[in-house]
Amino acid sequence: IQTKLPKVGTTIFTVMSQLAQQHNAVNLGQGFPDFDGPQSLRDALAAAMNSGKNQYAPMTGIAPLREQIAAKTEALYGRKVNADAEVTVTSGATEAIFAAIAAVVCPGDEVIVLDPCYDCYEPAIDLVGGRAVHIPLTLPDFSVDWQRVKDAVTPMTRVIMVNTPHNPSGAVFSAADLDTLAEITRGTQILVISDEVYEHIVFDDLPHQSALRHAELAERSFVVSSFGKTYHCTGWKVGYCIAPRALSAEFRKVHQYLTFCTFGPAQWAFADVLANDPQHYLDLPAFYQHKRDRFRELLAPTKFQLLPVSGAYFQLVDYTALSDKDDLGFCEWLVREAGVAAIPVSAFYETAPDARIIRFCFAKSDATLAAAAERLAKL
Amino acid sequence: IQTKLPKVGTTIFTVMSQLAQQHNAVNLGQGFPDFDGPQSLRDALAAAMNSGKNQYAPMTGIAPLREQIAAKTEALYGRKVNADAEVTVTSGATEAIFAAIAAVVCPGDEVIVLDPCYDCYEPAIDLVGGRAVHIPLTLPDFSVDWQRVKDAVTPMTRVIMVNTPHNPSGAVFSAADLDTLAEITRGTQILVISDEVYEHIVFDDLPHQSALRHAELAERSFVVSSFGKTYHCTGWKVGYCIAPRALSAEFRKVHQYLTFCTFGPAQWAFADVLANDPQHYLDLPAFYQHKRDRFRELLAPTKFQLLPVSGAYFQLVDYTALSDKDDLGFCEWLVREAGVAAIPVSAFYETAPDARIIRFCFAKSDATLAAAAERLAKL
Ligand SMILES: CSCCC(=O)C(=O)O
Ligand SMILES: CSCCC(=O)C(=O)O
Repeated sequence: IQTKLPKVGTTIFTVMSQLAQQHNAVNLGQGFPDFDGPQSLRDALAAAMNSGKNQYAPMTGIAPLREQIAAKTEALYGRKVNADAEVTVTSGATEAIFAAIAAVVCPGDEVIVLDPCYDCYEPAIDLVGGRAVHIPLTLPDFSVDWQRVKDAVTPMTRVIMVNTPHNPSGAVFSAADLDTLAEITRGTQILVISDEVYEHIVFDDLPHQSALRHAELAERSFVVSSFGKTYHCTGWKVGYCIAPRALSAEFRKVHQYLTFCTFGPAQWAFADVLANDPQHYLDLPAFYQHKRDRFRELLAPTKFQLLPVSGAYFQLVDYTALSDKDDLGFCEWLVREAGVAAIPVSAFYETAPDARIIRFCFAKSDATLAAAAERLAKL
Repeated sequence: IQTKLPKVGTTIFTVMSQLAQQHNAVNLGQGFPDFDGPQSLRDALAAAMNSGKNQYAPMTGIAPLREQIAAKTEALYGRKVNADAEVTVTSGATEAIFAAIAAVVCPGDEVIVLDPCYDCYEPAIDLVGGRAVHIPLTLPDFSVDWQRVKDAVTPMTRVIMVNTPHNPSGAVFSAADLDTLAEITRGTQILVISDEVYEHIVFDDLPHQSALRHAELAERSFVVSSFGKTYHCTGWKVGYCIAPRALSAEFRKVHQYLTFCTFGPAQWAFADVLANDPQHYLDLPAFYQHKRDRFRELLAPTKFQLLPVSGAYFQLVDYTALSDKDDLGFCEWLVREAGVAAIPVSAFYETAPDARIIRFCFAKSDATLAAAAERLAKL
């Protein structure tokens, strides 16, 4: 059988998690916390499933969850969205990104993606006959060179994909980034897919620059987020997409045939914690900033050079002082020899730059971070 | 914005469920039970989520669930499948069907679908640039006219989609159906997607003729099933796909970018009940046969003419004696005037035949079935 996706292998996240297990390594690779979210969340899920909410949820998501998402969006980003027509619950952000791409990208259309980026964008574009146009972010701070983006726009450009806070770099958008993106798309047919799954993890009192804050940009954007990062339950797979009515209508046409609906009891649980414990996500920046600072302190004496981190829960490090291997080779060596799993940043690139950078996930207990640092300090 | 799916509106299942609610009708429309599955299932889910299994499940599904699925497949259908390489857990059967189509259908490819069929097949085919070729089943027994299928095969035929037990008709395949399908595909590049979500609901001591029973057919088939129908929890959205290694590899390339993985605690729960309570699905035919027989008895005095049902949980009825409306019009009238929601069979067709048939779901408590019958008897 001839493959339709010749570039796709097993994702690096699966590969490194398997290697971590095999070598009994401290796993700072795949991005997930090694601790649980609030017990109230699990209790709310149990209550929903033990009170008969086990049949198909509405295709768009249960109303109380869509309403909580709309309320949070207005409170945090100042945008009123219609919970009925503009919010759709999905089976994780990955499904939402696939559905948004499939809903609007036609054969021959171009989608501008900013490298490094999460590895699910391009296969989705390929499967519907589109073409990814890769623009690298500018090192060392992973900022967007908007002039290059502008120069890459053609009459075939259908979508620009953005991601803030950014995985893997931890860079975050400024208000000026949103303005420039709005300016580039003004008067065009270009839509925006904004991946904001780390929306509640931004440090140093910076605001999260959601596309929803920008009145003009929001009119042409699919804003994708999820609860997995916010509530420390990446395996629960409840995400959502906020988009203007006409875009949401197209999004839903695809979503209803991708998964139809999402596990209902988890939707009730998130509706419950959003309503009763909004403090959880308000406390999240401080919670993860503490981990970031601790991890950076722990790595300071090592030979790794730390890059800045403004959001998300990843620390990039330059390992030039330790090895001249390429980053995949170095990660393979690191998991085997040092017993610490990381992710090579080249996995997020179409064409990797000449840099020696790997990614550690710091969404881990203090004990895990200390154990990893101890091993890394020996190198 | 120009739509990519001009034929797609809101699915009839959502439309009729909303009308049912609006008119306070007895809902025999969308296919879902109005009772819960075993308490042990919910307890097992709670145990999993309260013991820290809340981060990403493996992309292919947790090993114990894949192993239980493999064991059940061997026990019931006599086929040994490799749990690691040939079984993939998905976010419901809908996701599995989409992934199978997207994995193998290329632009210009033809997919033969047998009408009436579930409404998710064609949009998936359209989104990847394929073309659905509709062949009607033969009334009144909804059998496959295999000669017509054979005549529809062209060099562009990539997939034949089948579904047994069949939604909406309740028809089931015979061993001869599998043989003929194998014969048609022999020596060709044609693959089979076999939708078997009602695999455990077959009546009158008939065996379920899974494509997995047929050694030759199984080599070219994606067999899709799910746990929602079997465990009375359609909202839990855990499905799976069994396919030979090479096909599974392509399937997984798509699945990993559609949803990446499925809600973990539910996977642990299904692994648990499959291991500890196989009697549940062995008892299912008798459980639903009782409901079928009861519902048919209740409808016998009405003006509806009952079509035969050999599997799944739907009763088709001919309403010619009651109305000359088309079936959508009749269903709209029925929900409003009689307070009973049904599904028009034309919704499952590209080109509906000249017949007056609607579908009732009998996966309902005896009280619900009686309440519906009482209302229907007044017509
Ligand atoms: C779905 S596995 C990847 C998790 C993640 O977001 C990351 O590690 O970047
Ligand atoms: C996903 S809603 C449809 C449920 C179903 O299988 C049916 O009613 O046919």
